[in-house]
Amino acid sequence: MSPRRDAAEPTRSRRTGRRPGSPDTREAILAAARDAFAERGFDATTIRTVAAAAGVDPALVHHYFGTKEELFRAAMAIPVDPAELVPRVLAGGRDEVGERLVRTFLTVWDSPVGAAAVALLRSAVSNQWTARLLREFLTTQILRRVVDQLDLDPAEVPLRGGLVATQIAGLALMRYVIRLEPVASASPDTLAATVGPTVQRYLTGPLEAS
Amino acid sequence: MSPRRDAAEPTRSRRTGRRPGSPDTREAILAAARDAFAERGFDATTIRTVAAAAGVDPALVHHYFGTKEELFRAAMAIPVDPAELVPRVLAGGRDEVGERLVRTFLTVWDSPVGAAAVALLRSAVSNQWTARLLREFLTTQILRRVVDQLDLDPAEVPLRGGLVATQIAGLALMRYVIRLEPVASASPDTLAATVGPTVQRYLTGPLEAS
Repeated sequence: MSPRRDAAEPTRSRRTGRRPGSPDTREAILAAARDAFAERGFDATTIRTVAAAAGVDPALVHHYFGTKEELFRAAMAIPVDPAELVPRVLAGGRDEVGERLVRTFLTVWDSPVGAAAVALLRSAVSNQWTARLLREFLTTQILRRVVDQLDLDPAEVPLRGGLVATQIAGLALMRYVIRLEPVASASPDTLAATVGPTVQRYLTGPLEAS
Repeated sequence: MSPRRDAAEPTRSRRTGRRPGSPDTREAILAAARDAFAERGFDATTIRTVAAAAGVDPALVHHYFGTKEELFRAAMAIPVDPAELVPRVLAGGRDEVGERLVRTFLTVWDSPVGAAAVALLRSAVSNQWTARLLREFLTTQILRRVVDQLDLDPAEVPLRGGLVATQIAGLALMRYVIRLEPVASASPDTLAATVGPTVQRYLTGPLEAS
């Protein structure tokens, strides 16, 4: 991201008079993006509408933030890129995807950037607006990518994705926020082995007890 | 609870001069109880220490709030009584306990008193002190009762209970706070059938994938 951040500043915006490269302009774009993603959802939001709301040229939004997916991640301060992570989770075979998904989340959360993810969860709980953004993020950036690649019955996909979200979010809540032992200090191996089969069943197994 | 709330007021407390039956006194007892349960935990807290911290006679605490369990529930504004609910969940046989546990939680949360439970979850996320109280509550009032009656390997009990908490809390978070669809509007039957087997495995099944 640093090349974008450090790029020479383009000419002044004709509509607002703000210098486009200033922190004010970047912040105005991010604020407009958060509004748009929360109000219209990810799919109905375009770079063009965000640019119009921020009073800048669409090319400037692209210049600073790249694609719509990247703008969404920047607007939510998401420290990792699902477009890279999700394929890695799905690469190793369909039957271990549950365990690998849990392990990947734990790796991110336990790392230095994990604090930002936990802060986002906290914020979503106290703020309906962040909750809407998080819901959009989970649905369009994570769950959609996961289920697209697993060749699932499309009619079951929303429920499967939602159930995965309950287990993953609950794991984060108990491990990092409520800090319930022994979940809070269990090893990633233990949690991947115990919670992984749940995520696996939600994704690819029979949904109801046989 | 109304008989206690409406009971004739005892004589004035000699130590503080407050009228023991006044809302102030009740609130002072509840505040002292919250402090004690959060700081020392449920097991190490006694009615006597709460009474001393509130500057009232222990008999008055018993008079207004009953047992230590009931004082804990009152201090946390817990709208249901785990001492009644948990045996009901466990009554119908070991093999359906997962599904019945999910169904019981949904029944409480979906009911008018459920808003208090969701408020508690929100508060626990933003407030370390409430998180500690909730952790104590989950551990000593719910999980302990559940596992005591299921005849489990004591060495596995803490992890099993913690895993159940991740799934149940995550279900509450997604259904009532983040409102992720279709989890938010799924029927209790659908959720009991799909999430129940997870809770069942965490409680009585093999913990790791076979």
